[in-house]
Amino acid sequence: MREAKWIWYPGDYELYHSIKLHARREEFGCEYPTFWALATPYPNVRFFKSYHADEADTVRFVTRAKGYVIVDDRRLPVNEDVVLPAGDHNVMAVLLATNGLPSLYADSKYLKTDDSWIADHMIVTVRVPAVCTPAYTDAADNPEEFCFAYQRLDAVKTVKTEQGTLYDFGRETYALLHIEGADAQSEIRVTYGESRQEALDHAEALIRETLQGQSDYVRPGRAFRYVCVQGADKARVWADYEYLPIDDVATFSCNKKNVNKIWEICAYTLHLNSREFFLDGIKRDRWCWSGDAYQSYMANRYLYFDPEITKRTIIALLGKPPYEQHINSINDYSMYLIIGAYEYYFATGDAQFISLYFDRLHALYEFIVGRLDEQGYVCYRDGDWIFIDWSDMDKGGPLCAEQILLWQCHKCMAELCALVGKDGAAYKKAADALQKRVMQDYWREERGAFIDCHTTGKENVTRHANIFAIMYGFVSHRRAQKIVRCVLENDAITQITTPYFEFFELGALCMMGRLKTAQKKIESYWGGMVALGATSIWEQYLPEQKGIEHYGMYGMKYGCSLCHAWGGGPIYLLGRYCLGVYPTDIGYKTFAVQPDRGLYRHVDGTVPLPEGHSVRVKMDAHSCTVTATRAGGTLILGGKQYNIPADRELTVEF
Amino acid sequence: MREAKWIWYPGDYELYHSIKLHARREEFGCEYPTFWALATPYPNVRFFKSYHADEADTVRFVTRAKGYVIVDDRRLPVNEDVVLPAGDHNVMAVLLATNGLPSLYADSKYLKTDDSWIADHMIVTVRVPAVCTPAYTDAADNPEEFCFAYQRLDAVKTVKTEQGTLYDFGRETYALLHIEGADAQSEIRVTYGESRQEALDHAEALIRETLQGQSDYVRPGRAFRYVCVQGADKARVWADYEYLPIDDVATFSCNKKNVNKIWEICAYTLHLNSREFFLDGIKRDRWCWSGDAYQSYMANRYLYFDPEITKRTIIALLGKPPYEQHINSINDYSMYLIIGAYEYYFATGDAQFISLYFDRLHALYEFIVGRLDEQGYVCYRDGDWIFIDWSDMDKGGPLCAEQILLWQCHKCMAELCALVGKDGAAYKKAADALQKRVMQDYWREERGAFIDCHTTGKENVTRHANIFAIMYGFVSHRRAQKIVRCVLENDAITQITTPYFEFFELGALCMMGRLKTAQKKIESYWGGMVALGATSIWEQYLPEQKGIEHYGMYGMKYGCSLCHAWGGGPIYLLGRYCLGVYPTDIGYKTFAVQPDRGLYRHVDGTVPLPEGHSVRVKMDAHSCTVTATRAGGTLILGGKQYNIPADRELTVEF
Repeated sequence: MREAKWIWYPGDYELYHSIKLHARREEFGCEYPTFWALATPYPNVRFFKSYHADEADTVRFVTRAKGYVIVDDRRLPVNEDVVLPAGDHNVMAVLLATNGLPSLYADSKYLKTDDSWIADHMIVTVRVPAVCTPAYTDAADNPEEFCFAYQRLDAVKTVKTEQGTLYDFGRETYALLHIEGADAQSEIRVTYGESRQEALDHAEALIRETLQGQSDYVRPGRAFRYVCVQGADKARVWADYEYLPIDDVATFSCNKKNVNKIWEICAYTLHLNSREFFLDGIKRDRWCWSGDAYQSYMANRYLYFDPEITKRTIIALLGKPPYEQHINSINDYSMYLIIGAYEYYFATGDAQFISLYFDRLHALYEFIVGRLDEQGYVCYRDGDWIFIDWSDMDKGGPLCAEQILLWQCHKCMAELCALVGKDGAAYKKAADALQKRVMQDYWREERGAFIDCHTTGKENVTRHANIFAIMYGFVSHRRAQKIVRCVLENDAITQITTPYFEFFELGALCMMGRLKTAQKKIESYWGGMVALGATSIWEQYLPEQKGIEHYGMYGMKYGCSLCHAWGGGPIYLLGRYCLGVYPTDIGYKTFAVQPDRGLYRHVDGTVPLPEGHSVRVKMDAHSCTVTATRAGGTLILGGKQYNIPADRELTVEF
Repeated sequence: MREAKWIWYPGDYELYHSIKLHARREEFGCEYPTFWALATPYPNVRFFKSYHADEADTVRFVTRAKGYVIVDDRRLPVNEDVVLPAGDHNVMAVLLATNGLPSLYADSKYLKTDDSWIADHMIVTVRVPAVCTPAYTDAADNPEEFCFAYQRLDAVKTVKTEQGTLYDFGRETYALLHIEGADAQSEIRVTYGESRQEALDHAEALIRETLQGQSDYVRPGRAFRYVCVQGADKARVWADYEYLPIDDVATFSCNKKNVNKIWEICAYTLHLNSREFFLDGIKRDRWCWSGDAYQSYMANRYLYFDPEITKRTIIALLGKPPYEQHINSINDYSMYLIIGAYEYYFATGDAQFISLYFDRLHALYEFIVGRLDEQGYVCYRDGDWIFIDWSDMDKGGPLCAEQILLWQCHKCMAELCALVGKDGAAYKKAADALQKRVMQDYWREERGAFIDCHTTGKENVTRHANIFAIMYGFVSHRRAQKIVRCVLENDAITQITTPYFEFFELGALCMMGRLKTAQKKIESYWGGMVALGATSIWEQYLPEQKGIEHYGMYGMKYGCSLCHAWGGGPIYLLGRYCLGVYPTDIGYKTFAVQPDRGLYRHVDGTVPLPEGHSVRVKMDAHSCTVTATRAGGTLILGGKQYNIPADRELTVEF
């Protein structure tokens, strides 16, 4: 028999934790909750189950909500032992949470809550499977508390400074700071720093606090490598690393030690940002941003292939209808969410997820489409934020990059419709019409480029739309090649400054066979940060800056996040284009391995497949060895294809 | 300068308290939360204010949510004193409540929170005035706690019985039971009864409990007249009456003492059910039902004319889009809500209320219309409850009574549209088309009646649709007269058994000049309960029942509520048709006084007008005296009209 688990209505857990998470940001001693509209869980829900008991059975329906249970025709209380007779029974639990997340637990011999139960939010026409996670299996567990793992960290170096005792934990971390044995009378000043300089600069540090009145403190989870503590000289100070215990499936090594180190740091960066949901960065926002998260979904597939965190993130970002605002208030971010949901499906084959959240995805799509202009273009409307990237672009009218995202979004919505048995032909048609219009309005054949905006007359070219055109296959291969030459390899076009768009750009270049360019950039750009002592990848990196200039952003001396998820791109790039693993059918039913050493003499790495499977690829100048834990793979090498057997090495010698 | 008050986003307070209220029901020791979908407050909101300070000013932004405040370009913490300089300032407060109701309070010399602030729910295109109530004016106040008044009640009679000590509080009440000085070891059994029998019948009483471990107890608010306490013989037992302090404006007396008593009991019944919202009854459901509440809005206008409780009730019932279910899950109840909102506007002229909630009302209307059948009739769809009344009706197809409500609903929506400057012509047209169709399908000229259902061939006639046809002016006066003769005065047509529809029936009869019939019924039907010792009006009264049969309903020995708001009908009937006061323009700008003694030798009563005004009407066989506290009234008497001056007696002698 299956194990009992706490159950709730699909999505409620994520919405509940999203509210908690988005209330947690702080800056300069101020609370700083998010500025976009959040959705709440359903306050009242029901759970249903039919079952058979061979004998009388004592059950306790446990909940923190108000509620009751109807078994057959008997109304029974929650949180008390009740005896149910032998026989066939129909159970309905009715819950109302005045605050928080309505959830239920029962664990008797014959009746256990799990995802075989049915749920509704009091609407009989919308009955869906209840959901649960393996994290909550005991009556004492509380789904309102997210389950993290913990590991004690001690400072690797302690220095007395004029500002107090400086604890260096050796690398970036996210931890609960413990201060033990302090003088309760003493005012303790704590300054958290991702950099040494920040920790020593109480006035400018983003995260800082003053404590008094206790001898022992456990502070909430925060990002830091350094902590400066003043006024608690005799106290023991240590950190309790708080993390989501997901194991890496992926590995990567090549002959270049610095590349291997970059890969490890990228992986660590992604780990630190993988929490309830994919965060943007762990020090400052700690929020869930759809564009940032979209890249994390991709890196996730090449690091852990954990479907749960991608699903949680999509659900949290989606919120609930009615939609009155773009996701995170950003037009592009609404579209990444729909595209990301489809890509999640393509990678996992998880049709149940799509079917559960289709109505929300479709409502979001309708919201997007409802705000297009007369040409069917994404345009600015009150409350919108046309973002794309922190680059200067000509946003004087509908922006090309937004239209290519919209094109992809139309197509993904058509696919999602097909998946749930609805007619999405109109969306496909909308995509085709949009493509024609964009080519007319934005494409400049003579310049081999898309311009930002066709209504201002500025004819400005930035990389972004051109990157999307390659990345989403918006243009023919011939035109894509032209874009590479005229835009991506054209130094006259303003360079990308964030690892965010750098990742998209390198992906597009790799698609066009420019793996070596990407490899060089990994060494110069990501390697540049590592050379400066980065233990996690930054939000922004401008090689020309010096010293603590690197730590500044948004007008704040330490405003730049030094641990930003969107820095994890090389995990994806090396797994996808160097080890060469990618799905060729939904859920990797079939997949290709098309390795390319590029600049490296030898590579040896593992890429995850769904459901804990993986494929290992070793390659040097003489041979290539591939081992997959399951069938379905094809090795593509030197123009030839080889079937990859399950669990047996396949070696091709050159 | 105005007084500082706690502020919140419109509707959030009501939704928050609705969830709390709908979680409070209990039965036989079980929690019993409501079964329809509830809506939540917005978790994050913003408040805006521009103001000027002549000098520097210390302000503390108080909130229980997470948040910060931007003043001009400075970000400031909440819940700390901050000094703002002299000059002009723009304030924006950003709040996120992880649980509960986001609300804000500030009270400095120059900056005070009140309804001059602007609010949004993070959607810049939906900015509305913040709301507040006079109940929360201090920083220590908490809008998450509803403000009731309290009054100590001691039992008027205490009897030792075999079941324990029986405390009789003299009449129905809603109170917190206090037990003081009990033996903490002793197990105390408490049985609450609206009737003596219920309090002495622990096994069958709906509200009962067992207490142990304390010497003093304060129990949550509950309905009772009698309480039986076993196991605490030496304890002091008293009750703290918890009530909404609204003063009656209305009075009523006539030569018949029993009628005066009925009126007082009806008024008291309405008071007990006037809490956060209008409840159905105070013992069992304690829920907010739209059909029941609709009658309470009407009685309210003739007892206190308190716009606040009607607004709170409408907001709580409305919830928020998207609508996936009828209000309370009942088709008719959705329609009463829209009709009730319009009637509220007509009685008060409160256009701001309509403009704030128009989008929700309109979304509900769209939901109703989206579920009509091909003929445009209300029909049963999955999850619906076609209620109308607890009578046997032919519900085998679209029910006539529902269609007449729909007709009124179309018309009210057209009026509401006009009020907010939208085009509601289509709704008016829909009403006209529906009326024609209903007359064809349901009206039987030869029988002078509407049948229940036109698709089953049963041709069954009940009173309900026929009552609505008169009440809402669906038929001509000639046909209405026919209906009175053929249906309402026809004993062969099954009688109404609930005060709920009895009220509508008597209203329709009064409209048709049958005040005396209503007066007789008040004495026989309402008076029948009073003769049986009722101290508040019951949910159902079947004169043929005996003894404790009266207390049973829904298969439960004491299932009938003995204090049900829908029993308050005589307040309306006597104020409207005997004292004869009614508005002839929006907000009673003009009003009529058209008194009719009916069966009474003399009457003397006061009817409220909006904003604390009132009109007193005294009449006997010789003269009629009217005094109004404001102008706008017209006395209609013996076919003549007299202008009623403000604050001066107008006497007409016959």
